[in-house]
Amino acid sequence: MNDNLSRDLYTALCAIPLIDPHSHIDPIAPASRSLDDILGYHYYTELAHSAGMSHEPLRKETSPRDRVKAILGHMGRFDNTVQYAWFLEIAREFLGFTGDKVTSADADALFDSAQTIFSQPDWEKQVLKKSNIDAIFLTNEFDDSLDGFDTSVYVPCLRTDALVFHLDKPKIRQRLIDTTGVDVGDAQSLRKAVWKLFARFKAKGAKACAISLPPDFAPVKVPDAELDRALKALSGDSPIAKAVFGGFQFARTIAGKSTGVDESPQAAVARGVFWMLAEHCREFELPFDLMIGVNRTVYEAGVYQGQDLFDRQTSLIQYRDLFNAFPEVTFPISVLTSGQNQELVAYSWIFPNVVTNGHWWYSNIPAYIGRDLTERLQAVPKTKQIGYYSDAYKLEFVLPKYNMYRRVLAEALADQFVRPGRMSETEAVALGKRLLRDNVREIFDV
Amino acid sequence: MNDNLSRDLYTALCAIPLIDPHSHIDPIAPASRSLDDILGYHYYTELAHSAGMSHEPLRKETSPRDRVKAILGHMGRFDNTVQYAWFLEIAREFLGFTGDKVTSADADALFDSAQTIFSQPDWEKQVLKKSNIDAIFLTNEFDDSLDGFDTSVYVPCLRTDALVFHLDKPKIRQRLIDTTGVDVGDAQSLRKAVWKLFARFKAKGAKACAISLPPDFAPVKVPDAELDRALKALSGDSPIAKAVFGGFQFARTIAGKSTGVDESPQAAVARGVFWMLAEHCREFELPFDLMIGVNRTVYEAGVYQGQDLFDRQTSLIQYRDLFNAFPEVTFPISVLTSGQNQELVAYSWIFPNVVTNGHWWYSNIPAYIGRDLTERLQAVPKTKQIGYYSDAYKLEFVLPKYNMYRRVLAEALADQFVRPGRMSETEAVALGKRLLRDNVREIFDV
Amino acid sequence: MNDNLSRDLYTALCAIPLIDPHSHIDPIAPASRSLDDILGYHYYTELAHSAGMSHEPLRKETSPRDRVKAILGHMGRFDNTVQYAWFLEIAREFLGFTGDKVTSADADALFDSAQTIFSQPDWEKQVLKKSNIDAIFLTNEFDDSLDGFDTSVYVPCLRTDALVFHLDKPKIRQRLIDTTGVDVGDAQSLRKAVWKLFARFKAKGAKACAISLPPDFAPVKVPDAELDRALKALSGDSPIAKAVFGGFQFARTIAGKSTGVDESPQAAVARGVFWMLAEHCREFELPFDLMIGVNRTVYEAGVYQGQDLFDRQTSLIQYRDLFNAFPEVTFPISVLTSGQNQELVAYSWIFPNVVTNGHWWYSNIPAYIGRDLTERLQAVPKTKQIGYYSDAYKLEFVLPKYNMYRRVLAEALADQFVRPGRMSETEAVALGKRLLRDNVREIFDV
Repeated sequence: MNDNLSRDLYTALCAIPLIDPHSHIDPIAPASRSLDDILGYHYYTELAHSAGMSHEPLRKETSPRDRVKAILGHMGRFDNTVQYAWFLEIAREFLGFTGDKVTSADADALFDSAQTIFSQPDWEKQVLKKSNIDAIFLTNEFDDSLDGFDTSVYVPCLRTDALVFHLDKPKIRQRLIDTTGVDVGDAQSLRKAVWKLFARFKAKGAKACAISLPPDFAPVKVPDAELDRALKALSGDSPIAKAVFGGFQFARTIAGKSTGVDESPQAAVARGVFWMLAEHCREFELPFDLMIGVNRTVYEAGVYQGQDLFDRQTSLIQYRDLFNAFPEVTFPISVLTSGQNQELVAYSWIFPNVVTNGHWWYSNIPAYIGRDLTERLQAVPKTKQIGYYSDAYKLEFVLPKYNMYRRVLAEALADQFVRPGRMSETEAVALGKRLLRDNVREIFDV
Repeated sequence: MNDNLSRDLYTALCAIPLIDPHSHIDPIAPASRSLDDILGYHYYTELAHSAGMSHEPLRKETSPRDRVKAILGHMGRFDNTVQYAWFLEIAREFLGFTGDKVTSADADALFDSAQTIFSQPDWEKQVLKKSNIDAIFLTNEFDDSLDGFDTSVYVPCLRTDALVFHLDKPKIRQRLIDTTGVDVGDAQSLRKAVWKLFARFKAKGAKACAISLPPDFAPVKVPDAELDRALKALSGDSPIAKAVFGGFQFARTIAGKSTGVDESPQAAVARGVFWMLAEHCREFELPFDLMIGVNRTVYEAGVYQGQDLFDRQTSLIQYRDLFNAFPEVTFPISVLTSGQNQELVAYSWIFPNVVTNGHWWYSNIPAYIGRDLTERLQAVPKTKQIGYYSDAYKLEFVLPKYNMYRRVLAEALADQFVRPGRMSETEAVALGKRLLRDNVREIFDV
Repeated sequence: MNDNLSRDLYTALCAIPLIDPHSHIDPIAPASRSLDDILGYHYYTELAHSAGMSHEPLRKETSPRDRVKAILGHMGRFDNTVQYAWFLEIAREFLGFTGDKVTSADADALFDSAQTIFSQPDWEKQVLKKSNIDAIFLTNEFDDSLDGFDTSVYVPCLRTDALVFHLDKPKIRQRLIDTTGVDVGDAQSLRKAVWKLFARFKAKGAKACAISLPPDFAPVKVPDAELDRALKALSGDSPIAKAVFGGFQFARTIAGKSTGVDESPQAAVARGVFWMLAEHCREFELPFDLMIGVNRTVYEAGVYQGQDLFDRQTSLIQYRDLFNAFPEVTFPISVLTSGQNQELVAYSWIFPNVVTNGHWWYSNIPAYIGRDLTERLQAVPKTKQIGYYSDAYKLEFVLPKYNMYRRVLAEALADQFVRPGRMSETEAVALGKRLLRDNVREIFDV
């Protein structure tokens, strides 16, 4: 930090216990077990691959130590990035590393330290404590077991991408039968299956329903008769059956205008299931996290999870009908690009049920966080801003990612509120606490 | 202000008498008469509603005092916003408030102070003087009376949204008959009516024609024969008549390419009237203010004036034909989003008849103003930048809104020109004066 | 520069010899011969015209001295812009000017100084030395002579706009015959002609193939049979022949989906030639510079080169198939707007063959450079960032443009790396050198 005020605010923000409202933590193995778990995070495999590393070290056959060496061997090409800075902070905070930079020469020593440190029986507890984590939200598939862990620390959330976008896959339909006992053949049976999923998750303390959505998705209500028709088209196993039914006309009301739309059965089912999920969020009183804008598999030869990108045309106007139709459901919205932030600011400023949610993925770097946060602080009610989530796959990432956010937040509070005399330091920290913790508690009813 | 240089520049900028080139002031009741007039401004009702206030306090039946209490009761949820800061500044500057923050506990005292202070017979004059306002532009409906006020202080402007987008409504057509004596049935009679409107406004000292436009509007010339056909379709009173004629094909030249377009009569009339307005701006030598990008009634259950949003796809390329066709007309352009600012910068840099105009609505917060202003200062000729307008509904808002702008401007001048040694302080203030006043005078011929 | 650290970094960056990877320098007349060459740069003619200057002084009949006077006479209207600052720096660095600002009163003296100074026999060498230029890339038409200059200083690059977008013009086809001896009538002969062009350029030391692309361009592979059909339609001389064949259906795979597309023969040829160029970049191991997003002739009455603008919808998703199909080709990407920078950051972060390339045209001002650069520094591997190119038409512009970039870069390095303790000054300068020079050498194999 460049000045005392920001440093003081940062220190005060770090003392606030976290409730992290979105992660990919596995509650059975939340902490890392080797350095390979850390450097296998897609940010590092992506950047190493993008900077010239082949797929070779990422194969199963490669030993974890060799994979770590390969990735560290390429890190010198991206030691300018904030992702490198996260890793350096992890090495210092959790691995006893004392250097100023990590290079491939440190690979063996770091790997060995990690083996020793991560194998301590209370390592998970140490990380939770050091990172000041009260609770962290999970990303659960609809058929995940929700037993065997403390759901007040690892909070279940129903992730619904598979239901919305992959119900044409026999495997998904079979998993749905296995979990709910319902064979989905029409709107009614689908509704029954979805209700059972929500009931199970709610009973286990789930606090949100969540989904990531492609740039061209525009939710609308699908009448049951059409959903029936589309589901029947999908349930034919052969591609021919789908083709025969594909591309038929649906009546749609989009942004207030009645129109006829040529839709594949898949698209009709996606819209139908999505709308049904919103109805169940209303019934079960769960916020519906929307993560808007990701195109899957854009870079076909990319590393695992390093294939997805976005486009520049997605607009929140596509969600107009949804926000109007469900005033009782809170929609915490994540956008993939900083270019969409002004829309998010304006929609949150106007719609009572739209709230801002963190800084997602490609926007999760200080340049975008700083800009987006400042805009939100100036124009969105403070009670409607969920400051940050870690999106972490392993607990060790919560600390450096939140520290990055807290640094940016401390500087924004200093510049926007304390220095212009609008708030005292105490008041500014209270505003920070609202973004970091209070709003998570209130919005998700934790 | 954080430093002496910025503070000095700010003070010097505050001494420049304002000509505010866009507002919604009622010239018959320009100043507030109660605190309800202040807090009834849509920014406050929107933010309070978005933060949880119901529509209940906004009903006519609610007493002004109770409405004020309800809004102040929710202000604690958005005291981070710049709109709250405007209100605090109004309370301090105009209501004798001395506290650091306004809470619901202050409601009665503030309400009573306002009653006393606003009822002074010379209150309007006091506000004009304290706010250093020489003149302020109005937003007049085509049939507004332009008598009974000093048009050199309250400058008439012809607002044309109703003519362009609502000529299908019998009420609007009747009002047009009442004002011009012309029943609009074809292109020729429409032209006659529009000419009469311009003649009347021009005679009363109007200085601009203005309109707000939806994101998908793309002006093109509509041949008289087609405008005739479309107007006839509209003039049938029954919806059936409109439907029968709806959706027919027009020949269009869009962005240099001939194409056939399916257009509703409404859309054809909108384009036809718009183009005709531009022709009359040319004839009557009036700038045509375009406020680009607003989608009306996106949030259907929103408060009055709190229902409008935008999308992310609007582009100035849609105005290419217009800018090319009317080199004699100056188009002061307001864009709704900061994301469009680079387009505005580039179009103003290239087209002699395009000038930048203020920071509109959802972009009217320091984060966006600062960014957009800096870009304009670095790349658009200084004679082509209209710095700011208040958009105010009551005079008391001119001061805090312009102060917000002047703070951002002072910092931009300090950072971009004075500190790098490109200008002296005196020269920087002159540049500020050009943006704040000189360009308004020259462009609108005040 | 506002502080010592930034100033020190700037000084160190200035000492790094430049390899400028994109310009429009004429290698036979690289330096200016009169002040008219400087002020005839389209930035000045655009801004003067936009600020009120007519086309009159730009006619051939006007004497260079009078043209210079006319442009300087309008400079007071845009002395706020960064382009004015470049000119002031040229006047000071190259013309012995000692004033703080240039006005029309300086026209004669500056014109005369320029005549004297520019006529020195070693002026070109002086400029190269003073500007610390090792090498500078050219923009060569496919039939440019590549003899008579030192190609290790003036590096040839094959510019391909004419081949891709104007092959319907008999003049272009004739020039292609004249250069390659091949009459292009079908895919096979086209391939032969393109191969010959690449062979000639490669033999003369060309280091890149380059093109500027309109916002709606979306490259896809065109099967030879369809390219044959489209080329035949084009080769009929009469517009009728083109119309007859126009608008026929092509089968396309766009973003992974098979689809039928109505395309004009021109569009099919454009896509076909473009894809073929990428194939030859692969064969001849040349990077393919893509400059994405320019709409030509938007302002029809604009000055030469001052007619082009952009829209707001272009997305890198349009290039998905290309980036996937050519993993062996490096694509240095320039985007026209800062709003596209996050896409560029993300695509470079994910695709090994996508690298960021400079700050093009309408984004070439400090406000955009600063923002775009910071985003790139935080998220793109440092080995994949080509910092800057001058885009200059005359050598004298390399110095002020690079100085502008180096100032922004020095401040970014200070703020992002040195002050937060992430790098020493020496390391920060090394990072700067990587962006300014090392990456150009490695990526273009200089």
